[in-house]
Amino acid sequence: MNTKTYVEQHKDRFINELVDLLKIPSISADKAYKDDVINTSEVVKTALEKAGCDHVEICDTPGYPIVYGEKIIDKDLPTVLVYGHYDVQPPDPINLWDSPPFEPVIKKTDLHPDGAIFARGACDDKGQMYMHVKAMEFMTANDALPCNIKFMIEGEEEVGSESLGWFLERNREKLANDVILISDTGMISKENPSITTGLRGLSYVEVEVTGPNRDLHSGLYGGAVANPINILCQMIASLHDENNHITIPGFYDKVEELSKEERAEMAKAPFSQEEYNKALNIASEHGEKGYTTNERNSIRPTLDVNGIWGGYTGEGAKTVIASKAFAKISMRLVPDQNWKEITELFKNHFESIAPDSITVTVKPHHGGTAYVTPIDSIGYQAASAAYKDTFGKTPIPQRSGGSIPIVALFEKELNSKSILMGFGLDSDAIHSPNEHFGIWNYLKGIETIPHFYKHFAAMSK
Amino acid sequence: MNTKTYVEQHKDRFINELVDLLKIPSISADKAYKDDVINTSEVVKTALEKAGCDHVEICDTPGYPIVYGEKIIDKDLPTVLVYGHYDVQPPDPINLWDSPPFEPVIKKTDLHPDGAIFARGACDDKGQMYMHVKAMEFMTANDALPCNIKFMIEGEEEVGSESLGWFLERNREKLANDVILISDTGMISKENPSITTGLRGLSYVEVEVTGPNRDLHSGLYGGAVANPINILCQMIASLHDENNHITIPGFYDKVEELSKEERAEMAKAPFSQEEYNKALNIASEHGEKGYTTNERNSIRPTLDVNGIWGGYTGEGAKTVIASKAFAKISMRLVPDQNWKEITELFKNHFESIAPDSITVTVKPHHGGTAYVTPIDSIGYQAASAAYKDTFGKTPIPQRSGGSIPIVALFEKELNSKSILMGFGLDSDAIHSPNEHFGIWNYLKGIETIPHFYKHFAAMSK
Repeated sequence: MNTKTYVEQHKDRFINELVDLLKIPSISADKAYKDDVINTSEVVKTALEKAGCDHVEICDTPGYPIVYGEKIIDKDLPTVLVYGHYDVQPPDPINLWDSPPFEPVIKKTDLHPDGAIFARGACDDKGQMYMHVKAMEFMTANDALPCNIKFMIEGEEEVGSESLGWFLERNREKLANDVILISDTGMISKENPSITTGLRGLSYVEVEVTGPNRDLHSGLYGGAVANPINILCQMIASLHDENNHITIPGFYDKVEELSKEERAEMAKAPFSQEEYNKALNIASEHGEKGYTTNERNSIRPTLDVNGIWGGYTGEGAKTVIASKAFAKISMRLVPDQNWKEITELFKNHFESIAPDSITVTVKPHHGGTAYVTPIDSIGYQAASAAYKDTFGKTPIPQRSGGSIPIVALFEKELNSKSILMGFGLDSDAIHSPNEHFGIWNYLKGIETIPHFYKHFAAMSK
Repeated sequence: MNTKTYVEQHKDRFINELVDLLKIPSISADKAYKDDVINTSEVVKTALEKAGCDHVEICDTPGYPIVYGEKIIDKDLPTVLVYGHYDVQPPDPINLWDSPPFEPVIKKTDLHPDGAIFARGACDDKGQMYMHVKAMEFMTANDALPCNIKFMIEGEEEVGSESLGWFLERNREKLANDVILISDTGMISKENPSITTGLRGLSYVEVEVTGPNRDLHSGLYGGAVANPINILCQMIASLHDENNHITIPGFYDKVEELSKEERAEMAKAPFSQEEYNKALNIASEHGEKGYTTNERNSIRPTLDVNGIWGGYTGEGAKTVIASKAFAKISMRLVPDQNWKEITELFKNHFESIAPDSITVTVKPHHGGTAYVTPIDSIGYQAASAAYKDTFGKTPIPQRSGGSIPIVALFEKELNSKSILMGFGLDSDAIHSPNEHFGIWNYLKGIETIPHFYKHFAAMSK
């Protein structure tokens, strides 16, 4: 039976199984959900067993467990390692969700006439990870698995995959593979499949500015002491110049500059600034001078405040000068910026611009290095052929602005390339309220993935 | 019996009565405490009746009620109107309190060897307001009330006295008086009594910056869209120049400039910048170039962010570009700035500096006009003599940085001067965690106030 027919026959069950998985609030960033995260790893283990893995285990780490599964059909055949994550982003701001983030609902939208599943993690990454589990089910049920397969599903991706390096170092042999397959990215559109060939790196820090040793009455002290919030705003504002270049000394030193030709190639991807602005309801775009929107969010590094807080934020008015102000700041990095170097540059610069009247501390959260995958590899060619089979179109290689820090880690620790077969859309609102994943995209992924195995095994001969 | 003896005999009861009053969380800024605020007005009514008022009533307003009380001994004698407020500031940040804000405890401190009452509202203004109730008790119990007395105790001072103007307009006759007496300010120190002769005005606004129509993934969109938090920081930072002058066009146009002589007179007040910095644990002061600390917090206008929030502020890391960012901003004003004009100037300027890539809304909260009281009035002279009687020292006239917007309102609506007899200290931490009021200050206030009536009645003959 071909994948299309099998998916058609089992799609209701495939959807229900994903819905059940999405009901568990596996928020790795918030300790309050510890039991739910661990519970989710158990559910994934069971799913892998049912899908046909010969051996599945929950591997303890210093953090949340990693679910490992495998089916080795012949030691002489190539091995594909599937990576995914079962943890999800925090859902806040909760009040902006149209339905509770962990009570999945299926709704039709203009983009998704067949319906989309609305829930935190629907696309990132439970939905895309589970496509591989169901693809595995198809291949084993139909005796269509042409090579060895291994699964490594972690629970800390949304907090920087802190235990993954530890796990890779200790399990190089177990995880040995010829290619790594990941669905944790998107594609341009349903009509324009694409494969992500580049990812940005990340440096995420938290800063704390302290002024007076206690909150003060803004009338009695206002004007005479440094206000930590005003100072924090001034320090953050100074991190960009009038051209929206980042002002941290040395920040751009190692940035890979693309050639005119490469930028011209990129510019061929279908894109409408007008539609982009309309979709976000913004009057105009904003970014680094001299670059297009698609360059700004893929080949250029950025600095964004992801959260800021200080003083009185409740109802009404409080005339207070806060003792402290805080911000979470992340920088997206490009080849060949080293995230640890950049974190250090940020820390030194931010401390250096602090006025005497306050003190500042910079706490690094996590980070990752940018990555670019070669499109002439067997892995990429197999993925490209798979999309061609099911979409009837050769996918466009695309640089993405997102970060999957572990892709660079895999290359370092396991010495193998990662192929990023994403089936999500930008409009899926991952990391936002009302995250969703199109039923069509979900089923198309399950249908497409087995084709990758077919081509990869064949091309590896 | 003289006041000193009476206070000595009844001080334990005076303290216990205040402690009971402080147990009620009358937080006017937070609707959740509505019943407590109203309950407090009942308690104040009962206290005024017990203190000897002939007539007490709870007057409804569009907001929280105003407690009115009076004892008219002779229509031909002058009348003193006592103003105070029974509402308190929100207590957050709660976690910085050493004891629960509404479970008063008495602790000895270096400054208060006789102990201080720690609770929200201990000084601002329940403690200072209640001094007048107990002073009234003394005068009626000892047949020492030399003139008529009226009380007007409101419940919305901490949210801008929104209903007070409405009440004054409708009760000019009932509230008719020769002088208004208020204890809602502080003095320099126990050794250096002072009377506040100037107050700063206030304009309090809330701003909202909106970028994209939903929270976005900072990897996929970072660098290509305006980040509302970064933009808000840039807009706030631009409100001060490198000399910490406020950049809003026209902001300083009506600012009263003091003469060299007046500034020299001010400079005589005892002050140590070193001790000031030490008390706040700051390495250096910060403020408008060309002015001293005491000038910066009294005769100069300011702009402070009282609260800021946006994006992810929870535990861990979230790579999000928030759709919105918010800030509460207040400006302290000096004669002759008009708070409504300044609010308008701020609104127009803040909207004008907003880039096309975001939208901004400015919501005025409340405000008040600055005030200066003449020191040659009978009211001031009577107050000065009262301090001399009980402190053995003539009090220093002092300009305060705080705001009691209603003082200007009284002059406009009731055409009478307010005398600000404050007994609190800067270290009382009003509007901050661990607010407290010295037992010595509390009792000294009760002892001193009757002397004011004695002198005011005599000087009015």
